[in-house]
Amino acid sequence: MAQARLKVYGWGRKGEGMTPDEESFVMGGYRRMFGVRDFPDHKIPTLEEYDLRAPRLTPPAALARICSTDRYERALHAHSKGYTDYVRIMLNRFASAPDVVAYPETEQDIAAVMAWADGAGAVVIPFGGGSSVCGGVTPPADGPAVVTLNLSRLDKVLEIDRTSRAARIQAGVFGPALENQLRPHKLTLRHFPQSFEYSTLGGWIATRSGGHFATLYTHIDDLVESLRVVTPAGTLESRRLPGSGAGPSPDRMFIGSEGILGVITEAWMRLQDRPTFRAGGAVRFKDFFAAARALRVLSQAGLYPSNCRILDPNEARNTGAADGSAAIMVLAFESADHPVDAWMARALEIVRDHGGVPETEGGPDAHREGAAGQWRNAFIRMPYAREFLTPRAIINDTFETAITWDRFEAFHDSIKQATEKAIRDVTGKPGFVTCRFTHVYPDGPAPYFSFHGQGRHGAMLEQWQAIKTAASDAVIAGGGTITHHHAVGREHRPWYDRQRPDLFAAALKAAKKTLDPRGMMNPGVLIDP
Amino acid sequence: MAQARLKVYGWGRKGEGMTPDEESFVMGGYRRMFGVRDFPDHKIPTLEEYDLRAPRLTPPAALARICSTDRYERALHAHSKGYTDYVRIMLNRFASAPDVVAYPETEQDIAAVMAWADGAGAVVIPFGGGSSVCGGVTPPADGPAVVTLNLSRLDKVLEIDRTSRAARIQAGVFGPALENQLRPHKLTLRHFPQSFEYSTLGGWIATRSGGHFATLYTHIDDLVESLRVVTPAGTLESRRLPGSGAGPSPDRMFIGSEGILGVITEAWMRLQDRPTFRAGGAVRFKDFFAAARALRVLSQAGLYPSNCRILDPNEARNTGAADGSAAIMVLAFESADHPVDAWMARALEIVRDHGGVPETEGGPDAHREGAAGQWRNAFIRMPYAREFLTPRAIINDTFETAITWDRFEAFHDSIKQATEKAIRDVTGKPGFVTCRFTHVYPDGPAPYFSFHGQGRHGAMLEQWQAIKTAASDAVIAGGGTITHHHAVGREHRPWYDRQRPDLFAAALKAAKKTLDPRGMMNPGVLIDP
Repeated sequence: MAQARLKVYGWGRKGEGMTPDEESFVMGGYRRMFGVRDFPDHKIPTLEEYDLRAPRLTPPAALARICSTDRYERALHAHSKGYTDYVRIMLNRFASAPDVVAYPETEQDIAAVMAWADGAGAVVIPFGGGSSVCGGVTPPADGPAVVTLNLSRLDKVLEIDRTSRAARIQAGVFGPALENQLRPHKLTLRHFPQSFEYSTLGGWIATRSGGHFATLYTHIDDLVESLRVVTPAGTLESRRLPGSGAGPSPDRMFIGSEGILGVITEAWMRLQDRPTFRAGGAVRFKDFFAAARALRVLSQAGLYPSNCRILDPNEARNTGAADGSAAIMVLAFESADHPVDAWMARALEIVRDHGGVPETEGGPDAHREGAAGQWRNAFIRMPYAREFLTPRAIINDTFETAITWDRFEAFHDSIKQATEKAIRDVTGKPGFVTCRFTHVYPDGPAPYFSFHGQGRHGAMLEQWQAIKTAASDAVIAGGGTITHHHAVGREHRPWYDRQRPDLFAAALKAAKKTLDPRGMMNPGVLIDP
Repeated sequence: MAQARLKVYGWGRKGEGMTPDEESFVMGGYRRMFGVRDFPDHKIPTLEEYDLRAPRLTPPAALARICSTDRYERALHAHSKGYTDYVRIMLNRFASAPDVVAYPETEQDIAAVMAWADGAGAVVIPFGGGSSVCGGVTPPADGPAVVTLNLSRLDKVLEIDRTSRAARIQAGVFGPALENQLRPHKLTLRHFPQSFEYSTLGGWIATRSGGHFATLYTHIDDLVESLRVVTPAGTLESRRLPGSGAGPSPDRMFIGSEGILGVITEAWMRLQDRPTFRAGGAVRFKDFFAAARALRVLSQAGLYPSNCRILDPNEARNTGAADGSAAIMVLAFESADHPVDAWMARALEIVRDHGGVPETEGGPDAHREGAAGQWRNAFIRMPYAREFLTPRAIINDTFETAITWDRFEAFHDSIKQATEKAIRDVTGKPGFVTCRFTHVYPDGPAPYFSFHGQGRHGAMLEQWQAIKTAASDAVIAGGGTITHHHAVGREHRPWYDRQRPDLFAAALKAAKKTLDPRGMMNPGVLIDP
């Protein structure tokens, strides 16, 4: 049965979205937060109204089979799912629409599209699920013609090695289809970014996506056994190995390369058995820093919980996990091999020793109940909210980083302060910043900030940019990374440029020149050609 | 108190070596293995006899303070600790001696030596402990003049962040001195390669060294938080972060770069608390593959033992861990936070379910007792054996690799067969190959092979090369890596060249050209300029 079309404006497919109750909950939160009852509204243009220029390229006959210049296709690939994308669509700004969208079915198709684009002087944008929130797949609005390569027809699990628990998987497969193909083999990748339903394996690898596991296998990086990549200079494949010490890792050059070196077409991925043992629950703390200090000790104990996220009191309230009077830790262990009670018991000892009060204890379904379950549900549904927040001129965005434990508290405060000040300065109204941890390491957390302000139609992009700039300046000044798992894309470039060593950028540029001599792959991302 | 000098020929310092009892044990093993009573002998030349050419370079006055052209210094840096190094010293072959040895005390010293070498058209070889077993720091014998940069004066822990459990450490520090500086802070890096006493942090990072932990933190890679590197094009420093998703990891380009891109001068390293809880012991299996199958299940259970090495029956006999009738698994858990009994209990259930018979159970000192303790001691002492094996014309060497579980058994057999056949063909006498696992991953083991043959004086290098070639061909043909943690150096180059994707080599070459335009850094390693 054919699926409904992916939305150009909005998350997921046509017909999906928040229920009225969910929307009421979210809007009720904003009414309370801002102390206002009414919000403005703004028309969202329809497909027929989109302001698309005529395509500047005609696909050659040999590629017509896989190429489209269809209005919907070009509009769908003009933007992704970041704050600025929603605003630009609302404002009917489609200058970034690609001229042609290609749906390759084979690596040969990809090489042929690259060869054609090369000859035509066009730019090539690799596109997975299009869930980027940092302009990772947004074509440059000014410049040469653009071909977007949508990988979604490369959606198969090609080979399964049950003994080693690994599979060879095509890069264009979406999360649910990937898990569906692994399920009959009782295997799972267990990589569940918030975008899981609408993002792809190749996108996860190209952007160093962060997933389900709060500790240990936090990024997709560690789950990659080997890669195949089609570059303008040819195709390469790394050797399938559980570990190696033979020179710098070839895989690590392509993991996080965000499409600038070529197109990841398939990967051997490390899988897991499906967990059958679980323990978990929520723990209350008097404040966020108390929760963070407990989590530091927990993260250094070698217990490796699958979940140990903390939410500050307002974050907990905004997601319905608590009433705003306490910080919440969502804690869980899981295993396909053994009961995890001993692990959970020790974790609860640690959090109690550090002032935590368990709300619920244990139970195999604890991760779906109480504050933990409430947060989990909100987490999955949240991407739908932007559709109705944008016309209401609510500036609502998130950014994430990582920092060592010694600097965390001052870092948190300086970012919160800088961002709230920027919102006030820019909008003339109060701004609100909340924080949670998405992943945690023995040497530091990955804090994830949400910010909320009342924007003004006609100035939303500029307002957002001023706030984003203040927040990003604070992240870099405080020693953090401009992204822990959202990637660099185009929007994080100025801060990435300050973060990464110049000589590394020079080396990466030289590597790119070798694989992509004309600089046609996803220009503007990571480095300038 | 001044320490005794490092040996030019042999492991460690003057005055160290195996005891007569240890030597008897090792030689008794070879007498039994080969069925012979007497071995030849060969003179080892003395320092005064070494055939060193006159230095072709004179250090400039500004660098005289840190430079030496002393006979001992040049001889010490002509070779490292591989099989061929011992033979070449025995044969008085010192064509690879550097012309000058520099002992920089600061990064400025390093930059100054590089600038001088650049102007003089010389080659620069970064040198840590000189424990390479693959020609990683052996200067090219023919070619331009050579300056070896010995990093051992950069030996301090500069800064400790107790909260994040991390330290900023100079790259030239040897293992014991590093641990001594961390001990007052109750911290440890817990990276114990076999070469621990005579290798350095910078060497470990440059070669992707494998350490103490059999699972999880197997390579030094995962313990690196950030790096400083002096290259001919300038100095770079990566940002200190617990995790990041901002583009390809800069650190991962230098981890494993084996000195071809520059000199690692310091690193922020992730540390551990010193373990206080332990459980461990040895488990007997009827054969090696039975042990491997049990270990596969154990490695996929998410228990993360610190040790779970297995030895085949002959490997166990050769190290005194067993009598040759059984394969042995050395199993251990450790923690600074919690008793590990629940972990050990489940691990023992798994190994029993797969035919393992625990020899000893539990006990905090189990890792120092019985078969486990015997193996541990042999492991630490073994590097001293080569000193007396070489004059006896015993060809004794090791190589290590990694392979996914699905291919392991056939891979093991083909390597053992090819290597034993090569020894027979080359020496006219039986050859013996044993195997153990040094590290293990959910998707496959890192097998470590030892081979033993009776060589002939006058042909030992050629005999070794023929055996090494047969073994390495089998490793590559079977899908393994030419090295799991010994590095590529000069001796693994032909097989590394077949293993790594050509386009990755081209990209790495371009990166090197940017950082080392004249190609003077450790030429011959990894890629050709």
